[in-house]
Amino acid sequence: MSVASTFHDRLQEAWSHSGSLICVGLDPVRSRLPAAFRESPSGLRDFCCAIAEATADLVCAFKPQVAHFAAEGAEDQLASVIAFIQQRWPEVPVILDAKRSDIGTTAELYAKEVFERYNADAVTINPYLGEESIRPFLGYPGRGVALLCRTSNAGSGWLQTHPPEAPLYLRVAAAAKAWNREGNLMLVAGATYPEELARIREAVGPMPLLVPGVGAQGGDLAQALEAGLDADRQGLIINASRSVLYAGTDDDGAPFADASRNAALALWQAVNAIRDNLGSPAIARSL
Amino acid sequence: MSVASTFHDRLQEAWSHSGSLICVGLDPVRSRLPAAFRESPSGLRDFCCAIAEATADLVCAFKPQVAHFAAEGAEDQLASVIAFIQQRWPEVPVILDAKRSDIGTTAELYAKEVFERYNADAVTINPYLGEESIRPFLGYPGRGVALLCRTSNAGSGWLQTHPPEAPLYLRVAAAAKAWNREGNLMLVAGATYPEELARIREAVGPMPLLVPGVGAQGGDLAQALEAGLDADRQGLIINASRSVLYAGTDDDGAPFADASRNAALALWQAVNAIRDNLGSPAIARSL
Repeated sequence: MSVASTFHDRLQEAWSHSGSLICVGLDPVRSRLPAAFRESPSGLRDFCCAIAEATADLVCAFKPQVAHFAAEGAEDQLASVIAFIQQRWPEVPVILDAKRSDIGTTAELYAKEVFERYNADAVTINPYLGEESIRPFLGYPGRGVALLCRTSNAGSGWLQTHPPEAPLYLRVAAAAKAWNREGNLMLVAGATYPEELARIREAVGPMPLLVPGVGAQGGDLAQALEAGLDADRQGLIINASRSVLYAGTDDDGAPFADASRNAALALWQAVNAIRDNLGSPAIARSL
Repeated sequence: MSVASTFHDRLQEAWSHSGSLICVGLDPVRSRLPAAFRESPSGLRDFCCAIAEATADLVCAFKPQVAHFAAEGAEDQLASVIAFIQQRWPEVPVILDAKRSDIGTTAELYAKEVFERYNADAVTINPYLGEESIRPFLGYPGRGVALLCRTSNAGSGWLQTHPPEAPLYLRVAAAAKAWNREGNLMLVAGATYPEELARIREAVGPMPLLVPGVGAQGGDLAQALEAGLDADRQGLIINASRSVLYAGTDDDGAPFADASRNAALALWQAVNAIRDNLGSPAIARSL
């Protein structure tokens, strides 16, 4: 990868290289880990690395979530997970799910935390404070910024879809299109609201969309793909976290990593079957 | 303080005890610290503790900002600052400025980070994801939650004041009033927009408001107080960060802590002179 490439270019390479639109979210909840990890001080790190080993060839990105580490003071384990993935699979971008929001020097320091301390390839951030809260992150060449737009949870419509005739999420989408001078901006749009996902796609053209909500949250995969794929049948990062991470446990006799790989593979197959049915030229190349 | 008291009760005690509405924001930017701190590994912590020593009798709260520590991996120094303040001045609440935003298990883990790992008395959070992102924080009895409503920065109006006839920030204020079942919720409302601060006060009644923007950002103090004070001439936490922290440096011959104390004292005096002019019954008690 050349230093001059945009994050969109890097994602394009990752999509082409992997033939995959899926992203595994690394949300290690200690109480849900297999026993050996649950009881180990480095269990969060070791579990995430094992999941990465089991799924890396099936994904276009990994998305570690910072609170899962910060809640127990395990920032060093988060840094270690990111470094491990980048060393083993440099073609797979790591999106740090942090949803940061602040302005001025503080926003610069959050960007420093994400892109220098953790060396993440991309980050999720929150638009409530406006462009001043986003610009410091966009100042890092080649690093991606995924701005919350229409989130997957039921309680978000209260704010994000108001007022009905000109909903906030479309205001964010339009702004993101204008702010995307560096080719690094993305939007977060939940699979749980496919009609709104389609309106976002219409508003932003080929901008990549990070799509949570197809796993444990129950979003309809086919509807989300139909709504969100770009003209090349790419443009989406379909995230699954719990449905992959906790697909199995060692406790039931089968290795948890095999269960996670199978869950990721099933999602990979489901996504690509749907893309194929939609006549994807990209799929014809990569399958 | 009894275990059963609400955060509003605790703030009321802090206002009464200190006779102050001001809060010093602890935003230690390493490059701006006096030389002895700038070059010390524990400089962020030591600087914040020195500022706290110099100003504790003048404040109703302290507000450390997490990115200033996280950017250099100094979470342990942040924890140490909070513990130091709570041990020395248990009557002064510590508001962790983190502006977190997420849902479900992740929101619970952010709440755990803030209220268990750091043991903060209160936290700032972002409303973009709706009530599901706020509820886990409200589940901690007696801990405060300051929800972003109308922030002080110029670029926030694009989203927060839209649409003009029913602006988003008033939607957040109305929701906060409904969500405040535990007596722990506050709103963040910048001094830079006093007319909007007045509308928020009108919407939420006696709910405490955390007010940034009077220091380096140039908000008019008298206008902010007139707009935001509650019926008892209290109800506000007036934050100043840079204008207090960096009022002086040891480099110019005068101890930095004296300059910071003088800046905080000047703000304390200015606030209370204005409250007094407005005929505050609370002031008559505390001066």
